[in-house]
Amino acid sequence: MMKFGGWGDPGKAYDLSHRPNLWPFVRAQSGLGDQIIAPSRRAAEMTVPAPRLDAGFMDAVTAALGAAHVSTATEARLLHTYGKSYRDLLRARTGTPARSPDAVLFPANRSEVEAILRAAVQYGVQVVPFGGGTNICGGVEPDPTRPGMCVTVSLRRMKRVLVLDRVARTARIEAGALGPELEAELNARGFSLGHFPDSFEFSTLGGWLATRSAGMQSDAYGKIEDMVVSLTLCTPGGTLVTSNVPRSATGPDLSQIAVGSEGTLGLITEAVMRVHPLGEREYRGILVPGFDQGINLVRELTHRGALPTTTRLSNQQETALGFAMKPKSHGAGAFAAKAFKAYLRHVKRFPFDNACLMIVGFEAATHRELAEKRRRTLAICREFGAVNLGTSVGASWFAGKYDYPYLRDVVMDRGGMVDVVETAATWDVLPGLYHELKAALHAHLRRGEFPGYVGCHLSHSYPAGACLYFTFAALAEVGRQLPQYIEAKKLIFELLLKHGATLTHHHAVGYELLPWMSRHLGETGLQMLRGLKHSVDPQNLCNPGKLIPGLTPAQDLYFPPAT
Amino acid sequence: MMKFGGWGDPGKAYDLSHRPNLWPFVRAQSGLGDQIIAPSRRAAEMTVPAPRLDAGFMDAVTAALGAAHVSTATEARLLHTYGKSYRDLLRARTGTPARSPDAVLFPANRSEVEAILRAAVQYGVQVVPFGGGTNICGGVEPDPTRPGMCVTVSLRRMKRVLVLDRVARTARIEAGALGPELEAELNARGFSLGHFPDSFEFSTLGGWLATRSAGMQSDAYGKIEDMVVSLTLCTPGGTLVTSNVPRSATGPDLSQIAVGSEGTLGLITEAVMRVHPLGEREYRGILVPGFDQGINLVRELTHRGALPTTTRLSNQQETALGFAMKPKSHGAGAFAAKAFKAYLRHVKRFPFDNACLMIVGFEAATHRELAEKRRRTLAICREFGAVNLGTSVGASWFAGKYDYPYLRDVVMDRGGMVDVVETAATWDVLPGLYHELKAALHAHLRRGEFPGYVGCHLSHSYPAGACLYFTFAALAEVGRQLPQYIEAKKLIFELLLKHGATLTHHHAVGYELLPWMSRHLGETGLQMLRGLKHSVDPQNLCNPGKLIPGLTPAQDLYFPPAT
Repeated sequence: MMKFGGWGDPGKAYDLSHRPNLWPFVRAQSGLGDQIIAPSRRAAEMTVPAPRLDAGFMDAVTAALGAAHVSTATEARLLHTYGKSYRDLLRARTGTPARSPDAVLFPANRSEVEAILRAAVQYGVQVVPFGGGTNICGGVEPDPTRPGMCVTVSLRRMKRVLVLDRVARTARIEAGALGPELEAELNARGFSLGHFPDSFEFSTLGGWLATRSAGMQSDAYGKIEDMVVSLTLCTPGGTLVTSNVPRSATGPDLSQIAVGSEGTLGLITEAVMRVHPLGEREYRGILVPGFDQGINLVRELTHRGALPTTTRLSNQQETALGFAMKPKSHGAGAFAAKAFKAYLRHVKRFPFDNACLMIVGFEAATHRELAEKRRRTLAICREFGAVNLGTSVGASWFAGKYDYPYLRDVVMDRGGMVDVVETAATWDVLPGLYHELKAALHAHLRRGEFPGYVGCHLSHSYPAGACLYFTFAALAEVGRQLPQYIEAKKLIFELLLKHGATLTHHHAVGYELLPWMSRHLGETGLQMLRGLKHSVDPQNLCNPGKLIPGLTPAQDLYFPPAT
Repeated sequence: MMKFGGWGDPGKAYDLSHRPNLWPFVRAQSGLGDQIIAPSRRAAEMTVPAPRLDAGFMDAVTAALGAAHVSTATEARLLHTYGKSYRDLLRARTGTPARSPDAVLFPANRSEVEAILRAAVQYGVQVVPFGGGTNICGGVEPDPTRPGMCVTVSLRRMKRVLVLDRVARTARIEAGALGPELEAELNARGFSLGHFPDSFEFSTLGGWLATRSAGMQSDAYGKIEDMVVSLTLCTPGGTLVTSNVPRSATGPDLSQIAVGSEGTLGLITEAVMRVHPLGEREYRGILVPGFDQGINLVRELTHRGALPTTTRLSNQQETALGFAMKPKSHGAGAFAAKAFKAYLRHVKRFPFDNACLMIVGFEAATHRELAEKRRRTLAICREFGAVNLGTSVGASWFAGKYDYPYLRDVVMDRGGMVDVVETAATWDVLPGLYHELKAALHAHLRRGEFPGYVGCHLSHSYPAGACLYFTFAALAEVGRQLPQYIEAKKLIFELLLKHGATLTHHHAVGYELLPWMSRHLGETGLQMLRGLKHSVDPQNLCNPGKLIPGLTPAQDLYFPPAT
């Protein structure tokens, strides 16, 4: 399990000591001091109300799973209370309680999951699925407005790769497998799933599917919904096993209904996923003359079929943060970097003021194929005045790619507010949306001389458009951290709706996006989701209060109508 | 409109006169004579019962659409009675009636469609959407078991390309546009949708979306569900407009629910589709040593990222049919072909007995890119012992690619039974499925010395698998044509279920596949479809008796429990 009130490995923290430029950069943006003023509570310091246990339900699940896999321990309940959103961490830091599950269940297989659901139906028990707990939209938090018992079902015991089919290039994998677990098993047999989201180390296949996750290599392998061939979804109304075929015309795509259902229809217990053989890999840094030019460049790469495996274009602020995070370099390396920069500035007249770093990653079966892909991509980069910085920048980004979430804890410890938002839109919409959202966030975050930090990168590109991923930070307003956060959310989602962008490209809805869902999907779309829900879960037992507005009053609790 | 009792342009027929080898080939397979013994009735010879008109409904739709766009004429009603399945054509030939719509409506825009649906809800009128009428699974036939009035809604007046977005490379197109109509508009602006199903000349965008259609270039551009960015679906419960974004994580994919809904949720009125610029094009014939080797070859092309834009591998029988269809060649061309064949046989020891023709098509923005794609594909073909026959075979296939359905009429005119079935499965399943289904069909079709014709091609390939498309023909059993056809269908679908293949890759369900749907999707999957249906069409007005079994008794009418 991850830290209770922060990100990741309890034994690991983001190390500031050898990054002399980082805190001065953060301070200049936000005015944030470097003293720890808002540490997280530990789970052991927290109390939870006594569990509301339904004896009939407990007997049934204990009989099905064995007593060792049914926990009512305070620590287990606390560790399955929150996800990892800013709101979640704020509450963990301040000791603000939320509705903890009354018990945590650890089934070993599909039939145990089905037994849990049967008992839930019989005794009217709320069921919240739990993978790795990395969700940042409230997706794993019990609905506090629903009376009666609540259990969280952790799939962490279901983590095997059941079948690897080398001919079809698919793997049948249990939904509770963490990223590193399933990659280790696949890698040992020469394959990879190719799905590496920021949360990779702590999130599970089932969580990725339930939330429509995207990994860093999505430009080549797609989002998780593009990788899934078939899946098993256990619902209170029975178990759905979708056809294990590459495409079908037998009605609406049921796999694409289960994917993104966020536990509201039931629990995904396993899936058949496309896998690909391990091969060569290379990451590079590219310096692009500006963010708008970069958007055009990535669009061109997409349309000319020259998109790398990974393409991540940072705006100026995120580029500056990236350079500020670098350990101090010395000697020949530092000298060479300086000389190269001087050459670009004076000889090539490269416009450093707007320069943006773009990370490109190439994967291919053979070195020759990789070289061919690299050649095509770099040729188009040159057409756009972009400069190849070589593989050391790429390797350094690759090595630290899972560290960003740890940095959030450092900032929050010191009294900072930091959050992310991501969206997708068509190419014609992206530049205007970017500039307007960045300006609006700065206007919201600015405090005197401190403009606030608004980093952004474009990643996950498609022929019709791409994803924009914003990270924003400022000094938290003591005493009104939550209103400050909700105000930022409102500002952001109103702008996304105005531009016709989606509310989320890969983080899901949970309860955090509920207030905007009816305008985003429309009343008919919501009716269809409610019809689906009702068809398999008429008692609204499965993850109530998430995804679909209007089924419980939970939304009003999190977004009081007054604010 | 197409012919009443046959395929395509009423002024066009398949010309046997310059194809001296074709009928001997057909006769050798089936024993079929060359005299016309079972011609189709013409619509003018048929009668239909007087329409059951609901006065309130007629007033409402006449007010909304104008009297000129509301037809109760016998011919219009007859021409919107059937699709183009073997069963449909049989009934047209024998003058067997079916339930004709009581009126045919021709709305001009979304708000007129919405007005029709409002009136349908008010007066309880059955609504059947109609695009081009090429459907071969009973998808456009009114449900004869539903009492009360039935209207067919033809979208043929809604055929404009509304917006072409060159930046996002998308086009907003009205659903009633026929293939040639929308391609003409897009081509004039330098773009193409890239969707060319066999029915292209007579089918519409809305029909493609409602049935999950696949075009011949799907290896590059995907099936229709891969091309759609967003769409508008008018339902009795309101209109759904899905987000115009490349990807989203806001719950289940509502576009992928509308796609494949076969009119049961309402009418798709327009969609935003990915388009791509026109470029270079080249088709080639490849001779492959055998069908199983060909499957391995196509799989390898897919896995090594060298799949052409079109890949269509015919089995031996379909290859033989293709050569039998060729006009007689003379002079230097015929001599060169003979010499080449002799060279392959004697020098290269090519195994002609099992030879299979594979058509490969390449499309690319520039000639250089096309050459590079061709080089990669042909290199892998050579590894598998396949021989490049050059572009004339490809060009000849390309020129005649829409003629196959016309050949069916010729065969049926002469007392033949001919039908198609297509499926998709993972690569590991395909060879066994192919051999077992082919053998079973031959066992079913054989009559004495005549083995029956079982052609098959593999097309539409994906990393996990591909589509198999069978065409089978034999002498029709006079007096029991329909039982003979239903027996073949039963045999086929039982085998598809046994192998875990899908019941259809791109022809949809209609009522033809209903008896197998509950085993294919499972009871929970059907429950979800029924829940969706109920959420927007609780009165079951929209295309009742299609896709979802158990909502009307129509299924028992078409597949009497006794047979």
